Amino acid sequence: MPKTSQRGNEMPASPIRKLVPLSNAAKARGVKVYHLNIGQPDLPTPQEGLDALKHIDRKTLEYSPSEGLRSLREKLAEYYHRFDINVDVDDIIVTSGGSEAVLFAFMACLDPGDEIIVPEPAYANYMAFAISAGAKIVTVPSSIEEGFALPSTEEFEKLITPRTKGILICNPNNPTGYLYTQKEMNAIRDIVKKHDLFLFSDEVYREFCYTGAPYISAFHLPGIENQVVLIDSVSKRYSECGIRIGALITKHAELKKNVMKFCQARLSPPLLGQIVAEASIDASKDYMLMTYNEYVDRRKFLIDGLNRIPGVYSPIPMGAFYTVVSLPVDDADKFCEWCLREFEFEGCTVFMAPASGFYTTPGKGRNEVRMAYVLNKEDLGHALKVLAEALKAYPGRTSAC
Amino acid sequence: MPKTSQRGNEMPASPIRKLVPLSNAAKARGVKVYHLNIGQPDLPTPQEGLDALKHIDRKTLEYSPSEGLRSLREKLAEYYHRFDINVDVDDIIVTSGGSEAVLFAFMACLDPGDEIIVPEPAYANYMAFAISAGAKIVTVPSSIEEGFALPSTEEFEKLITPRTKGILICNPNNPTGYLYTQKEMNAIRDIVKKHDLFLFSDEVYREFCYTGAPYISAFHLPGIENQVVLIDSVSKRYSECGIRIGALITKHAELKKNVMKFCQARLSPPLLGQIVAEASIDASKDYMLMTYNEYVDRRKFLIDGLNRIPGVYSPIPMGAFYTVVSLPVDDADKFCEWCLREFEFEGCTVFMAPASGFYTTPGKGRNEVRMAYVLNKEDLGHALKVLAEALKAYPGRTSAC
Repeated sequence: MPKTSQRGNEMPASPIRKLVPLSNAAKARGVKVYHLNIGQPDLPTPQEGLDALKHIDRKTLEYSPSEGLRSLREKLAEYYHRFDINVDVDDIIVTSGGSEAVLFAFMACLDPGDEIIVPEPAYANYMAFAISAGAKIVTVPSSIEEGFALPSTEEFEKLITPRTKGILICNPNNPTGYLYTQKEMNAIRDIVKKHDLFLFSDEVYREFCYTGAPYISAFHLPGIENQVVLIDSVSKRYSECGIRIGALITKHAELKKNVMKFCQARLSPPLLGQIVAEASIDASKDYMLMTYNEYVDRRKFLIDGLNRIPGVYSPIPMGAFYTVVSLPVDDADKFCEWCLREFEFEGCTVFMAPASGFYTTPGKGRNEVRMAYVLNKEDLGHALKVLAEALKAYPGRTSAC
Repeated sequence: MPKTSQRGNEMPASPIRKLVPLSNAAKARGVKVYHLNIGQPDLPTPQEGLDALKHIDRKTLEYSPSEGLRSLREKLAEYYHRFDINVDVDDIIVTSGGSEAVLFAFMACLDPGDEIIVPEPAYANYMAFAISAGAKIVTVPSSIEEGFALPSTEEFEKLITPRTKGILICNPNNPTGYLYTQKEMNAIRDIVKKHDLFLFSDEVYREFCYTGAPYISAFHLPGIENQVVLIDSVSKRYSECGIRIGALITKHAELKKNVMKFCQARLSPPLLGQIVAEASIDASKDYMLMTYNEYVDRRKFLIDGLNRIPGVYSPIPMGAFYTVVSLPVDDADKFCEWCLREFEFEGCTVFMAPASGFYTTPGKGRNEVRMAYVLNKEDLGHALKVLAEALKAYPGRTSAC
């Protein structure tokens, strides 16, 4: 039998995915599982988006242009202008989710052996897309003790080699909820400018910034406009992850041209998703505020609740809808597995994402988990109770966190 | 400014794409352009599929499973059983169009430097996906003189090296409309078996076989069941290219596992497209027959009309909805460009795909074009008339074809 590729073998299998069968097994035996493990918002998609589906009167569901429907790209340009992101329609290429935007950014910027520097913990799939492109992710560690602040310029510069082609940030951050400050963004700009790098900036959570601190887009940084590759997606802000609509935004003419070749090869992004996304951009202020306030509420509720559990610590996330939490356990991978396999409290258990999947440095984040606050407060309250009980019962509990 | 990747620079820009601005310019000056250049069916999407859109009552458009909705995969399994393709639900992975199925097949099977052998002329985007994976497409030439029959086993075996990992066929064929015979498929099986290769088989046009000759799937070939990677798509058979739903089907356990890692990295295929695709599989027999008969009619009409034009020759395509035609011109690239840039007859012109984009051997197919019969007969009739006049007026006309 012919062998599969080495690349395929090297693709990481996420620690979350490994737990899915255990979660299904728990449900099968009647245990209620609280899903804190995945960034799948439970909030409603805007009615404008859902209505658009009912009003499609096309007879043939044809290919859309490879770069996406012009009407959607125009709407997106207007949307970005609201955030003082001054991009033109022609800078915006619609992709099948933010995922495809990351893949095409890597494919069009990086050759096999090229390196990009990413603060860890980081979204695990960046690694998968880098492997797809034959490129290498080099991580610069941030830590829970410092609230996941940006590592120093010196830490970045220590990692720069002749193969370094870019820096990737996610802001507001998945998994930490961290929001980079003006000072930190300036530091990133200086490194990017000095070393002539690409700045890949994943800003899909921009709507969700919870403190007075401003959201600073990579496109707000003067002097590196042609080096920024912005990754976006409508998935999270409109609770419509399933429609698979994202965007890659760049002013780099050659890069645009090359990204378009990858877009043309796959013919077009999903037509129906584009129709829904375009309508969703018209979501009312009330809808956006309802969504925002809901996450603000949940954030306070979850973080306060976590920090009240003895031995548990979560920094206060400033954006997105995740937090990385340290637990008084020997090994969060084992603890998460144990919760699903062996534990239940009043017929319930919790599914958390072990943080090990977000770090590449061995041993880092060993007692940490990522939680997404995509459940309503009542469920979050139960989940907190279950977690507290689980920590009491877990045989691998440690005294300190 | 940082440089884009060498890979991106190497990605082919299709000769069709280069002509699109000329086509748009022709339209802008009021010339009607008959599009024979692209496989975008003009027929209606099944009403079942369109109705499914109106009846979506989800409040949140969530991620679907990475492998696709189980209900769609079950329907697809039933569908394949109608063609005696005996695959299980678990062998079927839903992708964002057939395009993603090809990309993931290459990513999971091929490492940089690995080779696959493809009869040319071939669908141009296979090359793009191979470049994405760092793999090499080696072409074995077929020719219009021999009606695009499969090259001999010897021709294939001459090209096999230690890096050869697979053979790719498209059956019925895009761009030639050729349908491989039992004898040819047996020859492919023997090579694949003897050299322990993958057989990538793109069978998205299986519904469109126009002669008494049977459609033979790669999965009908005994003894290589674990080596077959079937590529499928609902785009063409239900005229719903825009929904981006395809499938990768394999019984190779390790490959399935590895393909799933790529699927998990991009989270999920489009939810809305899956809902439409699932409903479309219930399209009535009348719908399928109407579509089929329409292509049968157009095929006869177009091929007869082409062969009546002096100096023009098209073999009779046995499947799909394309044909490769030789024209009495010096250079089909120039001729296609000239038709759009300079020519019009009664306010009309034609847009054809130069065949050079489907060959890798330099000079091959120089006087050939691909035409798709995705226009109604009236338009095809006009297009034929325009083509005949264009050939009379073209300065680079040659006497023989």
